[in-house]
Amino acid sequence: MTGEPVFRRAVAADLPALVAMLADDPLGAGREGADDSHYHRAFAAIDADPNQFLCTVELDGRIAGMLQLTFIAGLSRGGARRGQIEAVRVARKARNRGLGRAMMDWAIQRCRDEGCAMVQLTSDRSRTDAHRFYERLGFANSHLGYKMALDQP
Amino acid sequence: MTGEPVFRRAVAADLPALVAMLADDPLGAGREGADDSHYHRAFAAIDADPNQFLCTVELDGRIAGMLQLTFIAGLSRGGARRGQIEAVRVARKARNRGLGRAMMDWAIQRCRDEGCAMVQLTSDRSRTDAHRFYERLGFANSHLGYKMALDQP
Repeated sequence: MTGEPVFRRAVAADLPALVAMLADDPLGAGREGADDSHYHRAFAAIDADPNQFLCTVELDGRIAGMLQLTFIAGLSRGGARRGQIEAVRVARKARNRGLGRAMMDWAIQRCRDEGCAMVQLTSDRSRTDAHRFYERLGFANSHLGYKMALDQP
Repeated sequence: MTGEPVFRRAVAADLPALVAMLADDPLGAGREGADDSHYHRAFAAIDADPNQFLCTVELDGRIAGMLQLTFIAGLSRGGARRGQIEAVRVARKARNRGLGRAMMDWAIQRCRDEGCAMVQLTSDRSRTDAHRFYERLGFANSHLGYKMALDQP
C-alpha cells in the first residue's frame, strides 16, 4: 500500500462504488444489478441500525474496499456479544497490496472495542483463496454455513 | 406432539429455562455457567433491538424450545434483508416429537413475513444430526463458517 487505509462509516454517496465492488466478483456478477432503489433502501436500514457498521475503506483518496459489521447480542456462551463480518470486498485495482489483511485487522479490533467475545463470518465454498486467508488470520473453520433463499410474493 | 407449540417473544422470567437448555448440550455444557448478570445483560440487549427476536417455544404449557432470529439489512444480493437463526435448542424431554421441525418452519415463515430474501445459519461441525436436519428442510450447505474468539481485557 502506498498510503494508510482510512476506515469510515459509509455514506449514501458511496453506494455506486460499493455496489460496483459487490458486482465485480465471480459470485456477485450474477447476483447484483437490482434497481438503485433497492440498494438505497437497504443502505438506509443499515445506517439506521446502531448494531450495524457498513465500512467504506479509502486508499490514496479513493474507495478501495468495503465490509459490513453486525453486532449481535445473544444468550449463548455466557451472554456473549458477537461481531459478524459480511460483504468483504477489495476493489480490483487495490488487490495484492495487503489491504484485505489491514481491513480484517481493523474489523477484529472494532469488534473488540464493541465488547464482542467472538468474531464470525461465513465464506462461500467456492472462495478457496478466501478460506486460506481467513485461516491465516486465525479464524477456525469450526462450522458449516447453511442458506436458504426465500421466494417473496 | 400432544398439543400445538406456542411461539412467543422471550421475557426475562424465561431466562433460567433458556440458559438451562443452552447448558444441556454437548457443546453448551462447556460454555455456559456464567454469572446470571451476564445473561440478564444480554437479554436486555436482545430485547431492546428491533432487529432481534428471541423466541420461547411452549408445548403443553411448558418451555420446550428456543431460537433466536436476527434480521440483517445488507447491500449484497440486490439489497437483500437476511434472517439469521442462532441458538436453536429443544429441551431434552421434548425431543423426537417433531418440535424442531415445527420451530424451523415457524422461523422461516417469520423471516418471510419480515421481508427477508434469505435465511441463514451456521452449525458446529460436530453436530452431524443437525446437518442432516437442516438439509432435509431445504438448506444448502453452501458456505464454510469461521469463528475467532476474542480475549477481552
